[in-house]
Amino acid sequence: MSFRASVLTLYPEMFPGPLGLSLAGKAMARGDWTLDTRQIRDFGLGRHRAVDDTPAGGGAGMVLRADVLASAIDAASPPGDDRPRLLMSPRGAPLRQGFVRELAGGPGVVVVCGRFEGVDERVIEARRLLEVSVGDYVLSGGEIAAMALLDAVVRLIPGVMGNAESGETESFEHGLLEHPHYTRPAEWEGRSIPAVLTSGDHGAIARWRRGEAERLTAERRPDLVQPRQK
Amino acid sequence: MSFRASVLTLYPEMFPGPLGLSLAGKAMARGDWTLDTRQIRDFGLGRHRAVDDTPAGGGAGMVLRADVLASAIDAASPPGDDRPRLLMSPRGAPLRQGFVRELAGGPGVVVVCGRFEGVDERVIEARRLLEVSVGDYVLSGGEIAAMALLDAVVRLIPGVMGNAESGETESFEHGLLEHPHYTRPAEWEGRSIPAVLTSGDHGAIARWRRGEAERLTAERRPDLVQPRQK
Repeated sequence: MSFRASVLTLYPEMFPGPLGLSLAGKAMARGDWTLDTRQIRDFGLGRHRAVDDTPAGGGAGMVLRADVLASAIDAASPPGDDRPRLLMSPRGAPLRQGFVRELAGGPGVVVVCGRFEGVDERVIEARRLLEVSVGDYVLSGGEIAAMALLDAVVRLIPGVMGNAESGETESFEHGLLEHPHYTRPAEWEGRSIPAVLTSGDHGAIARWRRGEAERLTAERRPDLVQPRQK
Repeated sequence: MSFRASVLTLYPEMFPGPLGLSLAGKAMARGDWTLDTRQIRDFGLGRHRAVDDTPAGGGAGMVLRADVLASAIDAASPPGDDRPRLLMSPRGAPLRQGFVRELAGGPGVVVVCGRFEGVDERVIEARRLLEVSVGDYVLSGGEIAAMALLDAVVRLIPGVMGNAESGETESFEHGLLEHPHYTRPAEWEGRSIPAVLTSGDHGAIARWRRGEAERLTAERRPDLVQPRQK
């Protein structure tokens, strides 16, 4: 069984988009994963297929209706579907590599892309949508967030990455940012590759890389190495 | 002068992709911003237009060459170009809404999309690339990260969002996650809209929303409200 992704969106024409090319696109062509995109508007109400309405209590923007979104979710993910259901939202739990790896080992995922001011809270509760945030910034909708999530997940589906090692040595897998990289030419614009990397001393190279990874992480992301204040 | 974005990538065919539709696409059609996509491989070496080589010191993956990437950057962003130059990278500073707003108020941005194991550190230093991360997960390349950044920035370019208020009341702008939203119908699957929201008491509604935003932020993102341990 390949990994099954279902995306619910008001912009199905955005998909597969970048997910149809490069690593994710090749994996899709091989059948390592499938992408099923649903137009939420197909479940809209009335002649105009309305999907949103004004917020209760007033305020700017429009809110995606609970009834409309529930119909779309129920069609994409009927009872018995054991895939987690995510709602891409800046209010969600920050996406981390550990959760990405967990999703990649599962049967697939149902991803709801928010738009407008927000989504009626009742459908989040009733359909047990897990709100996930790709970062502390605001997008015009959940589509690019869904692409980020799926790109991150698909590359970790068993068999997708050619070199198994690549998934192990990268940023976050050991709680550290990656060490600096260098390649030919040995000298460029007066800048040389650090001598240790061309020494042939594998122990020294490993120690240097570990030290640089620790230094960069401490400098740039102390939050990754130090416990957060309770 | 409209906002000018230049993207350097090995997958120019991914662009504009989702940025050509919805809010960002309409803004582009109106001329509020321009997107210039450059193929890094056009600056590759030799008959095969090589852009990468094996990492100095050994290890998995390939590294994007400093000389090749510098040529591409210099073509996209010649001396005198005052746009910031970003490299999308999981090693970078986490993207935050404050920086997004700062970029949206500037002349534009040059965005380098990494691929392979990494980018030769010397070009990051020599061309003063600011490493920016969209989140603590690993993508197959910087392209979807660049799309997330540009989508977030473009919506804040003056004139892009129809309703000026929408940019002010959303998640992160006041250090809080957004309060829950509700819309019609008043009752759905036995779930009602909280009575305060239909009370017509604007003061009570504002207090309820503020309280809910504070509660959600404290529950889900204590890191946003409490100072991080030094």
